[in-house]
Amino acid sequence: MALISPSRRLRRTPFSDGVEAAGVKAYTVYNRMLLPTVFESVEADYRHLKEHVQVWDVSVERQVELRGPDAARLMQMLTPRDLRGMLPGRCFYVPIVDETGGMLNDPVAVKLAEDRWWISIADSDLLLWVKGISNGYRLDVLIDEPDVSPLAIQGPKADELAARIFGDSIRDIKFFRFGLFEFEGREMVVARSGYSKQGGFEVYVEGSDIAMPLWDALFKAGEDLNVRAGCPNGIERIEGGLLSYGNDMTDDNTPHECGLGRFCDTQTAIGCIGRDALLRVAKEGPVQQIRAIAIEGDRLPLCDRAWGLYAGDTRVGQVTSAAWSPDHHTNVAIGMVRMTHWDTGTRLRVETPDGARDATVQAGFWH
Amino acid sequence: MALISPSRRLRRTPFSDGVEAAGVKAYTVYNRMLLPTVFESVEADYRHLKEHVQVWDVSVERQVELRGPDAARLMQMLTPRDLRGMLPGRCFYVPIVDETGGMLNDPVAVKLAEDRWWISIADSDLLLWVKGISNGYRLDVLIDEPDVSPLAIQGPKADELAARIFGDSIRDIKFFRFGLFEFEGREMVVARSGYSKQGGFEVYVEGSDIAMPLWDALFKAGEDLNVRAGCPNGIERIEGGLLSYGNDMTDDNTPHECGLGRFCDTQTAIGCIGRDALLRVAKEGPVQQIRAIAIEGDRLPLCDRAWGLYAGDTRVGQVTSAAWSPDHHTNVAIGMVRMTHWDTGTRLRVETPDGARDATVQAGFWH
Repeated sequence: MALISPSRRLRRTPFSDGVEAAGVKAYTVYNRMLLPTVFESVEADYRHLKEHVQVWDVSVERQVELRGPDAARLMQMLTPRDLRGMLPGRCFYVPIVDETGGMLNDPVAVKLAEDRWWISIADSDLLLWVKGISNGYRLDVLIDEPDVSPLAIQGPKADELAARIFGDSIRDIKFFRFGLFEFEGREMVVARSGYSKQGGFEVYVEGSDIAMPLWDALFKAGEDLNVRAGCPNGIERIEGGLLSYGNDMTDDNTPHECGLGRFCDTQTAIGCIGRDALLRVAKEGPVQQIRAIAIEGDRLPLCDRAWGLYAGDTRVGQVTSAAWSPDHHTNVAIGMVRMTHWDTGTRLRVETPDGARDATVQAGFWH
Repeated sequence: MALISPSRRLRRTPFSDGVEAAGVKAYTVYNRMLLPTVFESVEADYRHLKEHVQVWDVSVERQVELRGPDAARLMQMLTPRDLRGMLPGRCFYVPIVDETGGMLNDPVAVKLAEDRWWISIADSDLLLWVKGISNGYRLDVLIDEPDVSPLAIQGPKADELAARIFGDSIRDIKFFRFGLFEFEGREMVVARSGYSKQGGFEVYVEGSDIAMPLWDALFKAGEDLNVRAGCPNGIERIEGGLLSYGNDMTDDNTPHECGLGRFCDTQTAIGCIGRDALLRVAKEGPVQQIRAIAIEGDRLPLCDRAWGLYAGDTRVGQVTSAAWSPDHHTNVAIGMVRMTHWDTGTRLRVETPDGARDATVQAGFWH
C-alpha cells in the first residue's frame, strides 16, 4: 500500500486532531476530505464495533443546506422519492438522479423545517448539481455547505454512551428520526442513523469549535464501555449490504438497479428531474441489479477495481466490493448482476487478482 | 504519514499499471482518482524534472465534453473570459465561476470545433455544475466525461522525446496550441501545455486501450534521455506559481483574488453567469490577492492546512502551499494576502506547525 500525501486540498476535519491522537493508520478521501479507514486493523476494528461502541469522524458526510421558500420544491426536483408526506424531524434516504435517471448521490435528507433542509451527502460534489439546477430554474433558495460535521456513535453500547452525554431521552429516538439535544449549551441535531448495522446515532456537530470538546467528552464518558475511535468498516458494511456510492454504483446506474426501488415513488414524485427517464424502468424493472455475492476460497485482496462476473464465457456482471468475513468464513461481496443470472443460488465465476473463483448469488446480505 | 486505502471509488487510471511498475511511493486523490505524488523522493523527482524528461499520469485531469449547437453558448456561461475570438485548435485557461463570482474550477478549455469542447478540469466535480446549468437553461448540448486520460511529457528534453514518438512536426506546436498526431494508427490531441514550468506536452489519450502502449513506447524511446515516471512536483509548481484549486483557492475566492484577472474580460463576457457579481471587483480590484511568499528558516513540514499570516496581532492572510526549495535555499510558498500588506517586501509572520517564522512578500514567483 502507498502513502497518502497531505495537502490542504484533502481537507482535515474538526476531529482530525482526535483521530490522529487515536492512532489512525490509513485514510481514504471522500468529498475531498480525510476519512479514516483503519485504526488497529480492519478485522480488529470490526470485532470491536460488533461488541462495544465506537466514535467515528464522518465529517466527510458534508451537508448541502437548502434554505428559503423554494427549498422543498428544489428537494423534490432532486429525487424520485415522494417527499410530500415527510414531516420536519424526519430523515429520508433519497436517491438523487440526473435527467437520465442516473444516480448522482445517495444521501440522507434531513428536514429541519419546511424551508430548511440538510442533504447529508455521499461522495460526489452534489452541491454543484444543486446550485446549477437552482440557478437554471431561478429558484428562491440559498444553497451552501455549512460548518456541520457529523460524528457517529456506533455499536451495541451506543445508546448507553449517548445517554451519558445527551441524557436518557436520547434512547427514545426512533430509527431515522432526529431530536435536538444540548451539549455544553449548544443545541445539536442527533439522529438514530449511521453507516453500520450495529445501531447508534449521528450527531450533526454545528460549529467546528465544539467538535473536539464533544469528542473528548465521549471518550471520557465511555472509558468503562471500552469506547474506541473507529470508522465505517469495510467488512461490516458489506455484510450489512450498505452500498457505497462510487464503489457499488455510479451515475451509470438507476436507483432500481441499485435495489433502491423501494425509495422511489416515480409515478407521484412530480417535479423530479429524472422522473420521465425512470418511469419505464420503474414499471418494467431493471435488467441488472445489486446482489449479495459469496466468493469461495480463502481471503481475497482488496477490491480496487471491478472484478468481472462470468457464466461460462459470458460476462454477466461485476463485483465492486469484497472482504473476508471472519464471522461468516467466506468472502462477502457486493455485485451488479444481469437478470438472467441474478436468482438466488446461481453459480458464477469471478475473475479476481488471485485468479478465477467460484461465487454464488445470495438471497440477501449477511445481517 | 498514513497509508491510503484502495477502493474502486478512488479510481485507477489507464496508466496505473505503469505507475505501479515504476515504483510510485505516494498518492493524492484528485477528482476521485489516484494521482501519484512521489516516485524516488519529492526532491529527487524535482531535480530530475528540471534536468531530463518525465512522463506523468495526469488522467485525473478529467474532461467535461460539450457537444451540440449550444456548446459554445454554454462554455461562455461558465467563464468571465471572453471566448468570442477563440479559434478551434486553441487552449484557453478559463476561470469558472458561480453566480457570486466564486471560483468553481480553473480548467483549460480545449476548443476542438465550434460545437465540440473539452474542459480539462482541476479538482471539483465540474461535470455536475455544467449538467445542472444546462438542464436548468434547457440547452441543446450533450455533456459527459469521455474516456480521455491526459498523459504529460514534461522537462527540458520533452520536445526530443515527443518528436521520437509523434514526429518532428510536434516541435512546431506553439504554447497552448494543439495539433492532431498519430500513434499506432490512432489520432491524438497533443497540446503544448502542462503543470510545470519546464516545458512539454499533454497528450489527450482517447481510449483506455491505447494508454499503456503509448506509455511503454515513451519509456522505450526515451531510455538514453533518462526518461522517468514523474508527477506534478510540489516544489517546482510552487516555485513556478502554478496555483492548485482546493489548495490555494476555493469557491470563496474570485478570479481577481487569485491573480487571474488577466483571464477575465468581465465587461464583454456577455452570458457569463457570474458576470454581474464580478463587475465591481473587476473595476475596483480585489481586497486580497495571491502572492509569492518566502518563509525564512529551515525546511518546514508539508502544508496540510492554512497557516495564518500576521502583521503584529492582526491576521492579514494565510499561506496555503509551501515547500523547501533546494534551488532557492528558502521555503517557497503561496499565500492570500490582504491589500494592506501585499506590497513587495512586506515583512510578515507566519504561524507554522514548527512555530512562528518570518516571511516576506515577493515581487513574483521563482521561475
